[in-house]
Amino acid sequence: MTEFIQKLEKWDTWEITCPGHTDKNPFMDYKIQGTFTGDHECKTVDGFYDGEGNYVVRFMPSFEGIYQFLISGSFSEKTWEGTFEVLPALGNNHGPVHVANTYHFAYEDGVPYYSIGTTCYVWELQSEELQKQTLETLKNSAFNKIRFCILPKHYDYNLNEPISYPYIGTPCDSTKLTSENFMQYNGRAEGNQWDYTRFNPDHFRHIEQCIRQLRDLSIEADLIVMHPYDRWGFSLMDREQDEQYWNYVIARFSAYRNVWWSLANEYDLMPQKSVEDWECYAGIICRKDKYNHLRSIHNCRPFYDYTRPWITHCSIQRQDVYKTAEYVDEWRERYQKPVVLDEIAYEGNIQHGWGNISGKELVRRFWEASLRGGYAGHGETYMNPNDILWWSHGGVLHGESPDRLKFLYQILTETPGYGLTPLKQAWDEVCATVERVSYYLYYYGFNRPSFREFYFDDTTEFDVEVIDTWDMDIENRGICKGKFKVELPGKEYMAIRIRKHQA
Amino acid sequence: MTEFIQKLEKWDTWEITCPGHTDKNPFMDYKIQGTFTGDHECKTVDGFYDGEGNYVVRFMPSFEGIYQFLISGSFSEKTWEGTFEVLPALGNNHGPVHVANTYHFAYEDGVPYYSIGTTCYVWELQSEELQKQTLETLKNSAFNKIRFCILPKHYDYNLNEPISYPYIGTPCDSTKLTSENFMQYNGRAEGNQWDYTRFNPDHFRHIEQCIRQLRDLSIEADLIVMHPYDRWGFSLMDREQDEQYWNYVIARFSAYRNVWWSLANEYDLMPQKSVEDWECYAGIICRKDKYNHLRSIHNCRPFYDYTRPWITHCSIQRQDVYKTAEYVDEWRERYQKPVVLDEIAYEGNIQHGWGNISGKELVRRFWEASLRGGYAGHGETYMNPNDILWWSHGGVLHGESPDRLKFLYQILTETPGYGLTPLKQAWDEVCATVERVSYYLYYYGFNRPSFREFYFDDTTEFDVEVIDTWDMDIENRGICKGKFKVELPGKEYMAIRIRKHQA
Repeated sequence: MTEFIQKLEKWDTWEITCPGHTDKNPFMDYKIQGTFTGDHECKTVDGFYDGEGNYVVRFMPSFEGIYQFLISGSFSEKTWEGTFEVLPALGNNHGPVHVANTYHFAYEDGVPYYSIGTTCYVWELQSEELQKQTLETLKNSAFNKIRFCILPKHYDYNLNEPISYPYIGTPCDSTKLTSENFMQYNGRAEGNQWDYTRFNPDHFRHIEQCIRQLRDLSIEADLIVMHPYDRWGFSLMDREQDEQYWNYVIARFSAYRNVWWSLANEYDLMPQKSVEDWECYAGIICRKDKYNHLRSIHNCRPFYDYTRPWITHCSIQRQDVYKTAEYVDEWRERYQKPVVLDEIAYEGNIQHGWGNISGKELVRRFWEASLRGGYAGHGETYMNPNDILWWSHGGVLHGESPDRLKFLYQILTETPGYGLTPLKQAWDEVCATVERVSYYLYYYGFNRPSFREFYFDDTTEFDVEVIDTWDMDIENRGICKGKFKVELPGKEYMAIRIRKHQA
Repeated sequence: MTEFIQKLEKWDTWEITCPGHTDKNPFMDYKIQGTFTGDHECKTVDGFYDGEGNYVVRFMPSFEGIYQFLISGSFSEKTWEGTFEVLPALGNNHGPVHVANTYHFAYEDGVPYYSIGTTCYVWELQSEELQKQTLETLKNSAFNKIRFCILPKHYDYNLNEPISYPYIGTPCDSTKLTSENFMQYNGRAEGNQWDYTRFNPDHFRHIEQCIRQLRDLSIEADLIVMHPYDRWGFSLMDREQDEQYWNYVIARFSAYRNVWWSLANEYDLMPQKSVEDWECYAGIICRKDKYNHLRSIHNCRPFYDYTRPWITHCSIQRQDVYKTAEYVDEWRERYQKPVVLDEIAYEGNIQHGWGNISGKELVRRFWEASLRGGYAGHGETYMNPNDILWWSHGGVLHGESPDRLKFLYQILTETPGYGLTPLKQAWDEVCATVERVSYYLYYYGFNRPSFREFYFDDTTEFDVEVIDTWDMDIENRGICKGKFKVELPGKEYMAIRIRKHQA
């Protein structure tokens, strides 16, 4: 008797495992799908082969009530039918995140979602001990989104073997790799033997476990499906192999509510992939991901065309090294979509120029992005005797920015509505508001005015607070009205919040 | 017997005062000029009326030897003739500064000139005590250029009366001016009574004394001839009055070797002046300034067209508030002239957004400009109980940047040749060299790499130094060759200098 889930919360993941054919190549030659019918929706989704004769179908219900399911396909002569009950979502289960109000995000249940992302490219492919440490660190952090890769990463500081590979086969010998010679191996190094038609289910099962663990911590899994940092040849498969990979990934992962699709990290460093290829993969997602998860594609230098209809939000790596988050308002206007600066340089001290800004500068960029109505991403790259760097391996955080990002997150969650709207900018100040609400946030960045004068009108009373965004302090300055002056300590990274006083 | 100078150093200022007509309006109705003939040059220059029946001619000799002079004009029926001897220049007298090697500057005698400018708009129109303080401060600083105005300044923190005015007449009542209402008075406030055809010689004599004092401190006087910050109407004279003003200013000041002409501070905030007006004034300078002093014009927002032939160098106010000095290399290429960022925000804590960056940020901008082959300008605006702010009034310096600018100046003077050439830029580094010399300067700005690896070739030996540009320390790392690694402390504002080792 094949077991299946009888009751689950809305937006959780229903799953069934059915035995099926094991001859030929089950990954390619047999299909399984499930049709799910409730009062408010009917969805048909692809399942996948999970090795050892097991075929799996997953489904994320979007409504409460009773659902009927029917599992069928060439994988077996039998079919499976039944019902399950979907209960109300509880606790931290707010459903998947979608775009709200053009430039912002919200959970399916309406709760606003303010993205404070981090990057740990292959945290899940490190030792079990390190993974545990990473999850513990994330639990105590403000990060509610993490970018990471499905495929292993080959790069400086990433010469070690991942714990598993996505395909059946054997990797090239990595013992000769060093910090000096690793660049030569980009692509398909000699010695790799992979069967690109047979996946390694262990690798994907492990990633799913990580996705679930992140979900339980209320952290979005921004999955980087393709990337160029490769010595195994996974970035050089042909179109047919790529499509098979995409279908398998979507069938396995799309039923988890916290999944986002990042088609690539630095798509433009993959010259073998054309725009036509990316559009093809985007098409697969749009057809096969029945839950319409957020979709984007990240750049090294030139942006992908973010006006493409399948792109839900901009996932941007800064292009200029001096002016980064300060372009957010221009990009919002240009693309009319949420702007997420997923990469704006990392806090750290490594020798690579993209990973050695200070915590203060990173936090400043976050505030500049936020008050322009956008979002930013964190990463950390401090030299480490064991070569464990957060940006790639996770572990513990050594930097100063995470606490300040937690403080910023707190302020953001106090925004009335779905997000900040940039209002204006002066020489030394950026100001955000909320549409039709008397709520103003001013940020002074690296400038140090000693005071600021305000005037809104003669009668409205405002609660005024002076916020030290680095020392994480909020000072209540009482109720002000008419023309009023706010004294500031003449130090960097100050902000002022002004809200209509509610009697 | 009219006295005159018998002997003077080359590039000093020869002067004669001759009595003449006092009827009608001597400023306008009578002329005086001098013709100076030496073995290598013959120049005819305009003189000026100095009040009390005195007409003056000044001349700066550009060669050693005997000169003959002939003074004549409608100011008198008499003429004056004679000779004087010009001796070699001594000590700090290197002559006027001119453009050298397209992008840089040098004194007439060939000594390179690295501009480290500051701004004190109306220092010379403050109390005598404050002026003395300013000169003392300048003497102990690295500043070798100071921008200041001929006309008084009306602005926030500048509501006091200047010690003198350029014309005969009476000013409007300034006792009602406050920090809140001063903006209303921009232009010609009621109560002003000026005779725009009669200059006040005291005002100009005092400015000349200041120019001489600066010259003796080896400081260039970057004279701002027109500007918009005015409550007296000096910025609103008609074309004829402007031309008379220009002729008078050039006749009085051009014979001092340390004079530069800044046609305007923020020319674009003077809507009554058209491009045709500015071109007309530039033409007057080109015709009447026989010494071809450096000429430019400073902006608030849009640049003046720096390709105009009369413009010798770009005098730029940064346009973007985040990316300032980092545009220097683009501007050098665009304009093919020295780029002097005369205004890139001031160190301070006043409430105005152009005057409250930290000393660290200002010094960073200086280094970014310098390693891109350009020059920057300093200013300081710290709140002060007596409202004495360096940027306008001079006095003493309260900030942290001046010492670091002195340190930068020291490094610049060690450049072999006439200035730095930008070589390349990476994520976190800007590198400058000197053409055809194995001399390299790397600067890391706000980035903090822990080390850097270098390779030039297998055999050349290099002296390597690690420079802490904020803590002002130079650490000798010895001789390196081939592939070598330079450890860095992982802090901001570090630089590395690499020079071919001379055995």
